[in-house]
Amino acid sequence: MSDLKNDTFLRALARQPVEYTPVWMMRQAGRYLPEYRATRAKAGDFLSLCKNTELACEVTLQPLRRYALDAAILFSDILTIPDAMGLGLYFAEGEGPKFRKPLKTDADVDRLAVTETSRDLPYVTDAVSLIRRELNNSVPLIGFSGSPWTLATYMIEGGSNRDFTLSKLWLYNHPERLHRLLDKLALSVTEYLNAQIAAGAQAVQIFDTWGGVLSDQAYRHFSLRYMEKIIAGLTREADGRPVPVILFTKGGGQWLEDIAASGCDAAGLDWTTDIARARARVGGRIALQGNMDPAVLRAAPEVVEAEVERILSLFGRGAGHIFNLGHGITPDINPDTVACFIDAVHRLSPSFHP
Amino acid sequence: MSDLKNDTFLRALARQPVEYTPVWMMRQAGRYLPEYRATRAKAGDFLSLCKNTELACEVTLQPLRRYALDAAILFSDILTIPDAMGLGLYFAEGEGPKFRKPLKTDADVDRLAVTETSRDLPYVTDAVSLIRRELNNSVPLIGFSGSPWTLATYMIEGGSNRDFTLSKLWLYNHPERLHRLLDKLALSVTEYLNAQIAAGAQAVQIFDTWGGVLSDQAYRHFSLRYMEKIIAGLTREADGRPVPVILFTKGGGQWLEDIAASGCDAAGLDWTTDIARARARVGGRIALQGNMDPAVLRAAPEVVEAEVERILSLFGRGAGHIFNLGHGITPDINPDTVACFIDAVHRLSPSFHP
Repeated sequence: MSDLKNDTFLRALARQPVEYTPVWMMRQAGRYLPEYRATRAKAGDFLSLCKNTELACEVTLQPLRRYALDAAILFSDILTIPDAMGLGLYFAEGEGPKFRKPLKTDADVDRLAVTETSRDLPYVTDAVSLIRRELNNSVPLIGFSGSPWTLATYMIEGGSNRDFTLSKLWLYNHPERLHRLLDKLALSVTEYLNAQIAAGAQAVQIFDTWGGVLSDQAYRHFSLRYMEKIIAGLTREADGRPVPVILFTKGGGQWLEDIAASGCDAAGLDWTTDIARARARVGGRIALQGNMDPAVLRAAPEVVEAEVERILSLFGRGAGHIFNLGHGITPDINPDTVACFIDAVHRLSPSFHP
Repeated sequence: MSDLKNDTFLRALARQPVEYTPVWMMRQAGRYLPEYRATRAKAGDFLSLCKNTELACEVTLQPLRRYALDAAILFSDILTIPDAMGLGLYFAEGEGPKFRKPLKTDADVDRLAVTETSRDLPYVTDAVSLIRRELNNSVPLIGFSGSPWTLATYMIEGGSNRDFTLSKLWLYNHPERLHRLLDKLALSVTEYLNAQIAAGAQAVQIFDTWGGVLSDQAYRHFSLRYMEKIIAGLTREADGRPVPVILFTKGGGQWLEDIAASGCDAAGLDWTTDIARARARVGGRIALQGNMDPAVLRAAPEVVEAEVERILSLFGRGAGHIFNLGHGITPDINPDTVACFIDAVHRLSPSFHP
């Protein structure tokens, strides 16, 4: 068993008693930090930064030097697997991710090979190993992947498309083709997360960023089902410790009971969900992670503090809460406000614990 | 009491027995219809079309000539009130609505005058009267307005902004200023909907398009509260018939119990909500309107029919369901598929009614 100096995050995920509510932020290694922007400029573009082991490690650690975060998260992109499958990921300035060769036909799907991390994505596990060494057991490291449905939307649309026109066309008109794609992605994601765990990731999160755009039934058939397959195939112990799985479906608050039954250890909540009601609904079966609106970080320090207090009070006393934002932190946030946020969680939460 | 030939829609809203499930579509008068595009070209731009009584009436009636819809809805824009308040609404091609003079300061809010329809928006009630005459009691006419919060987002952002950066900054950092704005908007919307009812609207819908981007608490304080005020101030009977109110918060599925307690007669559901669970949650207190994903209309006729059947079955037997899409129909839909959709609702639904 690794000798973690701060295992608050892992204990909270296991719903064990903690002294305070642990906190980390989605996209905590990101553009709001000047040191991140400097490192990214050094790397060239975003994808080169992801693929450079030393620089990916460096930006992973940057927020931990500034803030008393209770976990680190691997710096990478959710679209590494489709990139490794040969779709040609690139980032057009101000337009988000794009693929040079989006999927169009049955044959395009049949041609895709399930990825193998050691062969196709060694830079990811290299980064995990290096970050673990550099963290030196200070806090746990979270590995992650996009969900099959979320990856599929980008692979089919060729980039971001708020209407999901083509991916929903596949879903409704070519469901078998979409299922074949999701099957390959689920196998790839399972192996990918297991490789991250083998390299040292101490928890993993599945980012189902676009599950929330689906109908209730389509969510269960085309997104949740594949995440359940992944969870069932994951290594759930390493170094004599459980490796918890966090499932985050943005916009998935209505499906929390289904998510709680997926085999995950925790559900990520966006800010639209009342965390008190959520806790009652999952009835202690899983932990909950979230769920402050990232927009609050644009407000004055006393507003941030009041919102932290409000969310802590809603969750209430006892174990099983990991504080986080309801989505990634945005580039325009002042790093000083983040300090105030992290500090507020640590200062105000002990009174909610034994 | 008006001698409506088809009052199925109004009876379903009152949760009274019907022979089949009534259906209409949000944005049913829209760009997917070639005759709409022709009329719009004649009018010039979108706003001129809204402000031209005869042409607004014409496009309102167009979908009813093609399809056996159970209700007409006034053709207008949700942003007529802010436009009448002097913000200068315009539509930049491919960019959605914009305001020349977005709100920036306390003084900007203080300067706004509550609108009075007969003085500031006569073209809207003129259109309602003309449409009622032309409908000749065939089906009921729905009036509508945007919700105060939804209107406020456009007025503050100056247009569409998926991150709601400035409107959330007001919400968190200047809540009193936002409340003053929402108060004025709630008064304007109340008077506006009452004027539509006086002119002949037989039901009204409040479009809370952006309520779903708020946190649970912010939704209740900054959106739902103002819709409750509006509902409390509405004329609820005309021509010896109740005038029902439909409240549609896109992304509001988690707050259905709160919505059901708002005083509305029906809640609009987007496609993310399981309508069977929704029915159980509201327990017959209100009717439900929805909730097929508009993306289904891009699929083959048999897929559309299967989805209609699935939603009818989920709602189950009995009164209180108005079939609709979960959001507006998009411009790329084939009008023949719409025919198949409306027909499927009418053909498949009688078996769910006495």
